[in-house]
Amino acid sequence: MIISRSIKDLKMRLRKLELEGNKIGLVPTMGYLHEGHMSLIDYSKKENDITVLSIFVNPTQFGENEDLDNYPRDEERDLEQANSKGVDFVFIPNVEEMYKNKKTTVHVSDLTNVLCGKSRPTHFDGVTTIVLKLFNIVRPHKAYFGQKDAQQVIVIEKMVNDLDMDTKIIVCPIVREEDGLAMSSRNVYLSSLQRKDALSLNRALSLVKEKFKAGEKNSITLKSLVRKEIESIESATIDYISLVDFENLEEIKIIDKKAIVLLAVFVGKTRLIDNIILEENLC
Amino acid sequence: MIISRSIKDLKMRLRKLELEGNKIGLVPTMGYLHEGHMSLIDYSKKENDITVLSIFVNPTQFGENEDLDNYPRDEERDLEQANSKGVDFVFIPNVEEMYKNKKTTVHVSDLTNVLCGKSRPTHFDGVTTIVLKLFNIVRPHKAYFGQKDAQQVIVIEKMVNDLDMDTKIIVCPIVREEDGLAMSSRNVYLSSLQRKDALSLNRALSLVKEKFKAGEKNSITLKSLVRKEIESIESATIDYISLVDFENLEEIKIIDKKAIVLLAVFVGKTRLIDNIILEENLC
Repeated sequence: MIISRSIKDLKMRLRKLELEGNKIGLVPTMGYLHEGHMSLIDYSKKENDITVLSIFVNPTQFGENEDLDNYPRDEERDLEQANSKGVDFVFIPNVEEMYKNKKTTVHVSDLTNVLCGKSRPTHFDGVTTIVLKLFNIVRPHKAYFGQKDAQQVIVIEKMVNDLDMDTKIIVCPIVREEDGLAMSSRNVYLSSLQRKDALSLNRALSLVKEKFKAGEKNSITLKSLVRKEIESIESATIDYISLVDFENLEEIKIIDKKAIVLLAVFVGKTRLIDNIILEENLC
Repeated sequence: MIISRSIKDLKMRLRKLELEGNKIGLVPTMGYLHEGHMSLIDYSKKENDITVLSIFVNPTQFGENEDLDNYPRDEERDLEQANSKGVDFVFIPNVEEMYKNKKTTVHVSDLTNVLCGKSRPTHFDGVTTIVLKLFNIVRPHKAYFGQKDAQQVIVIEKMVNDLDMDTKIIVCPIVREEDGLAMSSRNVYLSSLQRKDALSLNRALSLVKEKFKAGEKNSITLKSLVRKEIESIESATIDYISLVDFENLEEIKIIDKKAIVLLAVFVGKTRLIDNIILEENLC
């Protein structure tokens, strides 16, 4: 496993492999790897000749009062885990390497001013800019993202399509703890009591799934189920509950196409997100 | 010569050539080709295995009251000229092919709110977005731009560097008519009288060059020479006269590094630009 901290070095190595006809997969992460990330690596290993894992806590996607400084990091453990999974390249640049004297940003309109973009107004410009940079550095044939960050995936897919990029975005299922909590590096912020309260997110979404499968298509009814479940938890504060068109993220009233229920909830001071896709033949 | 109007088609053809090890040069234009464009094609032919010429009058770089609708076009003549120069691919997409349902823009800060960016506030976002798209479609090893659009070149170089793109930007000298007028597709707007008045731009810059070579380093003195020359022409209205640091486009008072004098002047209703680089050992 090659560890590279330099854009120039990594590019040189990867271009050679690309010209030799290798298919390259990229798993972009902010580190502090968990089973969700591991599953992305597995998918990439299966579908590509070379798998690149990037680890970069991207400052531009954090807002002013967010948890950039406290974001959990453990490089040593991350590298061990990557190595055990057979990752070929780990790219770990520092902030200077990625952003020194930079003046260029990439912006996707509309999709980024709703949901998480409403609560975190500069977040998605940070995401799209860093992802574009990573794609230009690695030139992956495929890049792997988790469905947990549903809006992120939809925004990135839009960017890739709008800018005529070659990388194919692969969206992988949410990986959950045994008790149903969606895996997230931020789960370490939770006290053991909050950890239990956090289960309310998945519980609420499971209720929605059941009702939807039983024939309920009314958005207000489904969302009120979620609201009721979350509001029953004292430590939980709802940021948003939305039921939107899967393609354009616009709120819908009656589900007549692929839709997604998205949920952002503060448990104590920790902001958690989760979601469930609603479509015909949901298993 | 292959003429392609489809992103997908062009990509497919070029990726094959790229994987075979061919070096690809791109000459991005808005068509209505003149000797300036021809010289860019010549440079690309010399330095690459494959030369791609793109012709696209990009609507997003025109302001609301600008000349998009009247911008001169002559596809047939352009294709003949490209063919006679040995261009390998001409890419002529329509607006729908490039922009249908698009929501993504690329923005370079600071460098784009001075000079032409001040008079044309949305211009450079249009330029950077279309150039990024063209680079992603063609994946050129080198792309050729004229020094006449000096600010454009500096903005594009910044974008390419900031976003870690592989394309090398090659800046080619201004090509002039025999009487000194910088070649531009917009020169066709000029009446024969205005055509003579337009020579004042090059005349003013030549005066600056002479004075600079004779030892004059004071920006105010040099700019006042230009102002006096342009103001002597009745049909001419100055948009800006600037003497700036070549790297960051900041105004300078005394020339102690590579600098550039930039000039934008309306002759009648036609906006013309020209510039001259001032550096040691200027020939």
